[in-house]
Amino acid sequence: MSQVGIIMGSKSDLPVMKEAAEILEELGVSFEIDIVSAHRTPEKMVDYATTARKRGLKAIIAGAGGAAHLPGMVASMTSLPVIGVPVKSRNSIDGWDSVLSILQMPGGIPVATVALDGAKNAGILAASIVSTFDDEVAANLDKYKASLKEKVLNTADELKQSGYKNI
Amino acid sequence: MSQVGIIMGSKSDLPVMKEAAEILEELGVSFEIDIVSAHRTPEKMVDYATTARKRGLKAIIAGAGGAAHLPGMVASMTSLPVIGVPVKSRNSIDGWDSVLSILQMPGGIPVATVALDGAKNAGILAASIVSTFDDEVAANLDKYKASLKEKVLNTADELKQSGYKNI
Amino acid sequence: MSQVGIIMGSKSDLPVMKEAAEILEELGVSFEIDIVSAHRTPEKMVDYATTARKRGLKAIIAGAGGAAHLPGMVASMTSLPVIGVPVKSRNSIDGWDSVLSILQMPGGIPVATVALDGAKNAGILAASIVSTFDDEVAANLDKYKASLKEKVLNTADELKQSGYKNI
Amino acid sequence: MSQVGIIMGSKSDLPVMKEAAEILEELGVSFEIDIVSAHRTPEKMVDYATTARKRGLKAIIAGAGGAAHLPGMVASMTSLPVIGVPVKSRNSIDGWDSVLSILQMPGGIPVATVALDGAKNAGILAASIVSTFDDEVAANLDKYKASLKEKVLNTADELKQSGYKNI
Amino acid sequence: MSQVGIIMGSKSDLPVMKEAAEILEELGVSFEIDIVSAHRTPEKMVDYATTARKRGLKAIIAGAGGAAHLPGMVASMTSLPVIGVPVKSRNSIDGWDSVLSILQMPGGIPVATVALDGAKNAGILAASIVSTFDDEVAANLDKYKASLKEKVLNTADELKQSGYKNI
Amino acid sequence: MSQVGIIMGSKSDLPVMKEAAEILEELGVSFEIDIVSAHRTPEKMVDYATTARKRGLKAIIAGAGGAAHLPGMVASMTSLPVIGVPVKSRNSIDGWDSVLSILQMPGGIPVATVALDGAKNAGILAASIVSTFDDEVAANLDKYKASLKEKVLNTADELKQSGYKNI
Amino acid sequence: MSQVGIIMGSKSDLPVMKEAAEILEELGVSFEIDIVSAHRTPEKMVDYATTARKRGLKAIIAGAGGAAHLPGMVASMTSLPVIGVPVKSRNSIDGWDSVLSILQMPGGIPVATVALDGAKNAGILAASIVSTFDDEVAANLDKYKASLKEKVLNTADELKQSGYKNI
Amino acid sequence: MSQVGIIMGSKSDLPVMKEAAEILEELGVSFEIDIVSAHRTPEKMVDYATTARKRGLKAIIAGAGGAAHLPGMVASMTSLPVIGVPVKSRNSIDGWDSVLSILQMPGGIPVATVALDGAKNAGILAASIVSTFDDEVAANLDKYKASLKEKVLNTADELKQSGYKNI
Repeated sequence: MSQVGIIMGSKSDLPVMKEAAEILEELGVSFEIDIVSAHRTPEKMVDYATTARKRGLKAIIAGAGGAAHLPGMVASMTSLPVIGVPVKSRNSIDGWDSVLSILQMPGGIPVATVALDGAKNAGILAASIVSTFDDEVAANLDKYKASLKEKVLNTADELKQSGYKNI
Repeated sequence: MSQVGIIMGSKSDLPVMKEAAEILEELGVSFEIDIVSAHRTPEKMVDYATTARKRGLKAIIAGAGGAAHLPGMVASMTSLPVIGVPVKSRNSIDGWDSVLSILQMPGGIPVATVALDGAKNAGILAASIVSTFDDEVAANLDKYKASLKEKVLNTADELKQSGYKNI
Repeated sequence: MSQVGIIMGSKSDLPVMKEAAEILEELGVSFEIDIVSAHRTPEKMVDYATTARKRGLKAIIAGAGGAAHLPGMVASMTSLPVIGVPVKSRNSIDGWDSVLSILQMPGGIPVATVALDGAKNAGILAASIVSTFDDEVAANLDKYKASLKEKVLNTADELKQSGYKNI
Repeated sequence: MSQVGIIMGSKSDLPVMKEAAEILEELGVSFEIDIVSAHRTPEKMVDYATTARKRGLKAIIAGAGGAAHLPGMVASMTSLPVIGVPVKSRNSIDGWDSVLSILQMPGGIPVATVALDGAKNAGILAASIVSTFDDEVAANLDKYKASLKEKVLNTADELKQSGYKNI
Repeated sequence: MSQVGIIMGSKSDLPVMKEAAEILEELGVSFEIDIVSAHRTPEKMVDYATTARKRGLKAIIAGAGGAAHLPGMVASMTSLPVIGVPVKSRNSIDGWDSVLSILQMPGGIPVATVALDGAKNAGILAASIVSTFDDEVAANLDKYKASLKEKVLNTADELKQSGYKNI
Repeated sequence: MSQVGIIMGSKSDLPVMKEAAEILEELGVSFEIDIVSAHRTPEKMVDYATTARKRGLKAIIAGAGGAAHLPGMVASMTSLPVIGVPVKSRNSIDGWDSVLSILQMPGGIPVATVALDGAKNAGILAASIVSTFDDEVAANLDKYKASLKEKVLNTADELKQSGYKNI
Repeated sequence: MSQVGIIMGSKSDLPVMKEAAEILEELGVSFEIDIVSAHRTPEKMVDYATTARKRGLKAIIAGAGGAAHLPGMVASMTSLPVIGVPVKSRNSIDGWDSVLSILQMPGGIPVATVALDGAKNAGILAASIVSTFDDEVAANLDKYKASLKEKVLNTADELKQSGYKNI
Repeated sequence: MSQVGIIMGSKSDLPVMKEAAEILEELGVSFEIDIVSAHRTPEKMVDYATTARKRGLKAIIAGAGGAAHLPGMVASMTSLPVIGVPVKSRNSIDGWDSVLSILQMPGGIPVATVALDGAKNAGILAASIVSTFDDEVAANLDKYKASLKEKVLNTADELKQSGYKNI
């Protein structure tokens, strides 16, 4: 039984969306991953969304590009938190289309939108939702945050050592 | 049996969308009009889209604002032509959200998008689709186009008569 | 006698616009294809638009880039449905110019606009117009839609089999 | 002990942000509400963010306008889910500034962004997070969703009864 | 015989476009003014453009809103300089549509574009074209420029006299 | 002898620009205020810019709207810090024109740009420049910052007292 | 004595701006070409602009990128027609900065703006200005227009011959 | 003791930000350079900002990309002038996110924003601040400006010598 579901509209979204899977793995959150298209497999989408809570999912991460309807449509059919990842697809108008199609949901049907191609952050957000009732994941998140700080402090040291001209 | 279906995501879209109804009436095309929300009544939407052709519709006009998913979702579930009207709703980011959510559909699922709040043009486009096999509607469209020309020529005359300072 | 006319403003639009031709061929819709420039061959454009219905066309697909006037000008001279394809040309400002020049038509003269470089969808839309009175094309469209679903379901299977790390 | 914290950068954000409070009340989720400015009270912000989990909060809703740093800064100092509400403030460039300042967070520090002025959806999203471990809130959310559907179906009936000209 | 032709797509453009007429009058340049719609009276437009040089015009000022095709289409049918005025019409997307439809003309067919609603500047630009061979108009332009300077210097004096609090 | 010069392109910029004067007065920084137009009084602009340092100015605040050239042109003729205020003028395209005309200066000629209509912040920035060698102004700035914090804490108290429904 | 002056803000604009020179040469219009920077050589710019009419120029083409002030500043110091070419420079925000800095000139100081990187069209526009009093240039322009048409008709023939698959 | 502090959110900003260091070196202004992340090392940021004046800094240059909070947060904690450099990071939406997150600061907390990736100009601006009380730096700035002019005049000569075809 997975805690988080990762879905995407097309196989071409996978290079972006797999960052969500990788970070969930790192943070010790179980997940499932699937391709579900709002426009090409609407029945599968309905099925996925309406059974999600029963199947034990705690959050759904949905990525899509262009006129991206998957996150919003899934959100309309479940009361679980849905995290939307705008993907900058081929033929996108600089990503604005997927950002606005996911972000600007009408009152009543929220989608938790992250940055363009921000699948990694979608994974972290899903983990933070799990962390509200799972102390181990909370601890993993705190460790992850500490490691981010560590890395910045290290590169700052490196810059001090080598000087800005030699780095 | 109606030739054209007009649907919209919310009653608040009606002041814009009724222009589609008015022009269809003027052009002698029969239509039905309903409120169908992609996010609030997804089952009704599925039902509407999947039975549209059987019910005799020749085109569907779908209007919605913000992250507007209705036109695209309907288009994914019928092979009839679907005309999308981006509505500039309250809280819209200047209309860009509805325009891009409707226009930028992925390959395979077209939506015939008209201008922001362009419901009248959606009606005319639906009539032009009907006109491909209905000579009376074709004739009505030609008369309508002639009347547009007439009006411009009349205001041009008026301008000539009165002078630009007195009009 | 062709059912659909495909025109474009410049030979440089052909790599985009030929996708309309390919999908029409696949869907069993006859078409003609030509280069007609609103700005360089206005007389040819007038001739093309005003004779289109008589020549038996049921829809016109017009693609152009930059300040794209071809779709709108053709629409002003025929009562057939005109489908506009915004092409992202060299020197375009990210495609916004062609999108807005085609989409934002004034009341009375609709252009059925599809996504940026969305010629394939323009072809499908033209076929869906033909399908309103041609059952064979309607059946072909339904088969095409089913094939899209099939492909997504297959890639979903593939993802399940191989795992997201090995695909 | 509150389950959700609502904070905003300025008292002028309250007319927007109180919609989050109202819907949380309706959904049976306890909350606290405060004014915390990233730029004017950075110490209070640090204190708020770093003690949030200990104080029992499960999610933080942060609203701000213009170059909106509050949601992202709070997210950098807690591993709880942070929901950002872009507020269209006076002198905002059509809301784009607050949307992008909140949405486009760097890798590692997600903010769950909702639509411009979308505080109601922020409240629903917070409730859906609480619902992952609180069945009563889950039930309330399902009831709320059902009521949305009900309302749309009722206005559709009303439209059918009165006709589009009399509504 | 007029030196400058002022045309606009619709009577609703007149409040903006009459500023071109007023400044031409002030600068001693003769002009004619007419309503010519690219989309509603294409034949009149063709006639207007193709006879312009013969009729003695030295420049054409064309204003239009939305998907504004009038300036570019006229430019395609005359070798006279054509000045385009983007008009911010009702339903315009903040004026971007008319700006881009006029500005982004393809190679070979220039339109001299002025600011959004900048009909006054269009008039001055037309006068500066006439001034290349008409010394009186050149002198009028220089006087006009001097008067602009005078006005600024006067308001600067006024500000100095009254202080910034009392103005 | 003033420490800061405030200039603006037109008297119509004064309602925005006087906020710079008011805050400088509050912060104890002497200033002069004038109307100088890059386009209408270029000689005065050259004179103003080239004599600024000699006259004892430490910073220049320049506000302008539309295609705003005043800040950049002044910056090209002095090595003093120049602060640019984009003013949202009538006919502006939502302020983008003045923002980009001031912000996007080429390498070698910086303009310190503040927010759209951000004249108050321009005044504070000028004071912070003066504060680098004037301890009294530095102290005034610190007091001002403390007062901002005070105000936020007070409104937070007020919110706590009255409750979000009664404020 | 040249009829048209071509200036640009930097040598890096030359690859774009030389298209203006090439087309003027083709159209038989004499020109001079120089580098004049509004921000780096303001004195040279003043000198260039204020002596332009005396030196016999009939139009000035000015190209610049980013916060492009050259066209507008030159226009402020001459009553000759000034044609502005927005150049998409390195670090430009997709060209929007140069387009808006040139296009959105205040009332009284027009710049005839052409498309982004549209130096060729600037040359043709300058020639059309010269053509208002020079019949030979008018004839050359008409020949050039005819050649554009010829080229389109030829590629149309080619397309018809080869078929869209083999071109 | 350095006069200027250069900080950036991530090592990946260094290729842009080192241009600030290089020009400060050229202009004879002492500086320190460090990596300080608003989101990953908030404590270090607080420490950096609150001790900056005491440590003798006269200005802080802060560069960051995406939802860039570093410049604004530092500005909220010091009364020194803070110069913000929007960096066009990977996944940025064409740089708009960093530009607006830095520029659109609320009243009371200015950030002196320079062009996208404009670190060199940030350095010059910092030097111009130092120049208000340091005559040597003022002289260096004037020499630098003179060298810019020299370079433009030289390329203009070169263009005149070689002709536009051979350069």
